[in-house]
Amino acid sequence: MTQPQIYNKEYLMAAGPTPLPPAVSQVMANPIPYHRAPAFMEIHERALGNLKKVFQTENEVLSFASSGTGALESAVGNLLFPGDVAAVASAGKFGERWADLCRSYCVDLTHLDLEWGDRIDGEAIDRMLGSMEQTPRAVFATLSETSTGVVHDVRGIAEAAQEHGTIAVIDAISGLAAADLPQDDWGVDVVISGSQKALMAPPGLAFASVSEKAMAIATEREGNRFYFDWGRTAKGQAQSPPSSPFTPAVTLWLALDVALQQILEEGLPQVFERHAILARAARAGVDGLGLERFGVQFEGSNVVTAAHLPESIDGAQVPKLMRDSYGVTAAGGQNDLKGKIVRIAHCGYFGAFDILISLTALENSLRDLGYEVEPGTAAAAAQRVFVEAGSPAPVG
Amino acid sequence: MTQPQIYNKEYLMAAGPTPLPPAVSQVMANPIPYHRAPAFMEIHERALGNLKKVFQTENEVLSFASSGTGALESAVGNLLFPGDVAAVASAGKFGERWADLCRSYCVDLTHLDLEWGDRIDGEAIDRMLGSMEQTPRAVFATLSETSTGVVHDVRGIAEAAQEHGTIAVIDAISGLAAADLPQDDWGVDVVISGSQKALMAPPGLAFASVSEKAMAIATEREGNRFYFDWGRTAKGQAQSPPSSPFTPAVTLWLALDVALQQILEEGLPQVFERHAILARAARAGVDGLGLERFGVQFEGSNVVTAAHLPESIDGAQVPKLMRDSYGVTAAGGQNDLKGKIVRIAHCGYFGAFDILISLTALENSLRDLGYEVEPGTAAAAAQRVFVEAGSPAPVG
Repeated sequence: MTQPQIYNKEYLMAAGPTPLPPAVSQVMANPIPYHRAPAFMEIHERALGNLKKVFQTENEVLSFASSGTGALESAVGNLLFPGDVAAVASAGKFGERWADLCRSYCVDLTHLDLEWGDRIDGEAIDRMLGSMEQTPRAVFATLSETSTGVVHDVRGIAEAAQEHGTIAVIDAISGLAAADLPQDDWGVDVVISGSQKALMAPPGLAFASVSEKAMAIATEREGNRFYFDWGRTAKGQAQSPPSSPFTPAVTLWLALDVALQQILEEGLPQVFERHAILARAARAGVDGLGLERFGVQFEGSNVVTAAHLPESIDGAQVPKLMRDSYGVTAAGGQNDLKGKIVRIAHCGYFGAFDILISLTALENSLRDLGYEVEPGTAAAAAQRVFVEAGSPAPVG
Repeated sequence: MTQPQIYNKEYLMAAGPTPLPPAVSQVMANPIPYHRAPAFMEIHERALGNLKKVFQTENEVLSFASSGTGALESAVGNLLFPGDVAAVASAGKFGERWADLCRSYCVDLTHLDLEWGDRIDGEAIDRMLGSMEQTPRAVFATLSETSTGVVHDVRGIAEAAQEHGTIAVIDAISGLAAADLPQDDWGVDVVISGSQKALMAPPGLAFASVSEKAMAIATEREGNRFYFDWGRTAKGQAQSPPSSPFTPAVTLWLALDVALQQILEEGLPQVFERHAILARAARAGVDGLGLERFGVQFEGSNVVTAAHLPESIDGAQVPKLMRDSYGVTAAGGQNDLKGKIVRIAHCGYFGAFDILISLTALENSLRDLGYEVEPGTAAAAAQRVFVEAGSPAPVG
């Protein structure tokens, strides 16, 4: 008898695009709606209203058909003109995108460029702003730095910005609806996000929740923008029912609408707690494997867990083995961290068993590369967290 | 016995988003792929290769997650800086978008603003360029003007641009793969399109096919652009396999890939002929109803057929009745043409019976508003065209 083949199923365990709930996937196979027909306009209006709840804001959440970066660019392009003074604080690949964007717009940039894995807090922002000769028009930072797993101190960042008389603009693409960010309570003037992370929808929609103050700054000056112009989109969405200045990506709105309803039925506090439990389990699994966690993995880093890979093995092989031998698509390190870390995502539609799968695929791959660990260690460590949290499938 | 209710089915008969083939809709319900996994990269590479065939070009077709307008803006933002000289020729709502975009970028604009319904040809461009003191960096025009149904003379426009030492940039969002536009043969330097018209995919992907010459002009100067920067996207797509600088809208790529394969299996000449037959039938139906066709509806206007509504009726009610009483979503007139015209689309996944449905819903609505016409007139007129063309379902 030849060796039996156990089915090698495919698992998307990446930090974005994230897995979709079946109802979200399936609604996209429905007949395509016309964007100006009442049936679609009702869906669009409901989803826009639900976005406000998820952003925890009274702002209109401006929506674009684009990747998340498009909405990031909308903030830079609406707030800054060449020669304007701006500040960026970053500690990883996605934070650095703010600096790249600012440079593309030829602004006078002060860039607090921390080590990858550091956590940005209010003090760091306060020091940066205190050292600048001129108050910047805006400070740009990130909620969850996907390249390192660190969730930054957005509350402190926003407070420091306010104290120095400027506005905070936060990239919450990977963190919104995974890590708490009560925009209005914390006084964050601009929050950017995308559809493909904790919002449990496919990539292709991006959002900018813009305060009145930020909108006033943006509308002071026009030009050099059209598709991502906040005023144009705000004008469309202010109609009743809300409209869009350009053909919206209708299939993605169908998906987002279903996903947002699921999130709000579950309840935002429950959604954050679900992410917290999954993250605790992932951290326990990583610890159980004897790996050192990467970055400032404090208790709030609930979006993605990054772990150092043992120096004794060829780390670049880990994500490859996880995928090719065990069917699990997980993320390795980016840029200088390539081959040095692995990232376990738990952002969006992840269940407890998904964490067991990711951790076990990691354990298997480490063993295949000669790293010594008892089979089942990672799953057992995570499982203890889930049982302690009250259930192997704590929510839903 | 109460009056029996005949099922009122819903039919999307608009000029974009257009109906999707079932296989295109259904593939979006598949498990969502990771954009950096080999399975997706293969789909992405195949679709990018097939786009080149549909654009009839050797250029790399640069792709963006956005509405079509995003790719239009990419052309303006990559080619023009404030103060640059540019020329736009338009004869309808979508052509005017080029002028709006150029104004947003503060360029020195010459705008040939023809009557809605006119057709732009090489002579008109030649006269405009001859009258300008300085040669513009680019001339912007439209293939199919969806607001009027007119397909412009892109070949002549491109020739005139070349003779005057400038480049032609063509918005082919609604026309590509419906009206022939052999980009390389005609020497069109930039062709823009979107996923949601004759490409039979949902909205949310937009394309710019950029010649070497246009790319050289774009890369002369940097700044004021990031997401829509041609150089950045070209660099990503030049990798093997092609990559994307930002998370691609993966579900839309799955859909586009299926649609492009269907188009190329059918064959481009057959696709154009299919559109031509559907358009002839639509024109015959409109003529049969005794309506005057709007605009220069010459034989090549195969994307959408616009018809004047009788002055004796309240024209604004026509699209409303077609939708509410007969389930057919069709387009009325835009801006000044609101209530004055109706537009029958035949662009993308339309069959012969779809034209009969659109025309019959129009006929019913006209009768409901008191216009006198013998029942079945429109369908009969269209049906004679289909039979003459060899079949009631001429292709597929």
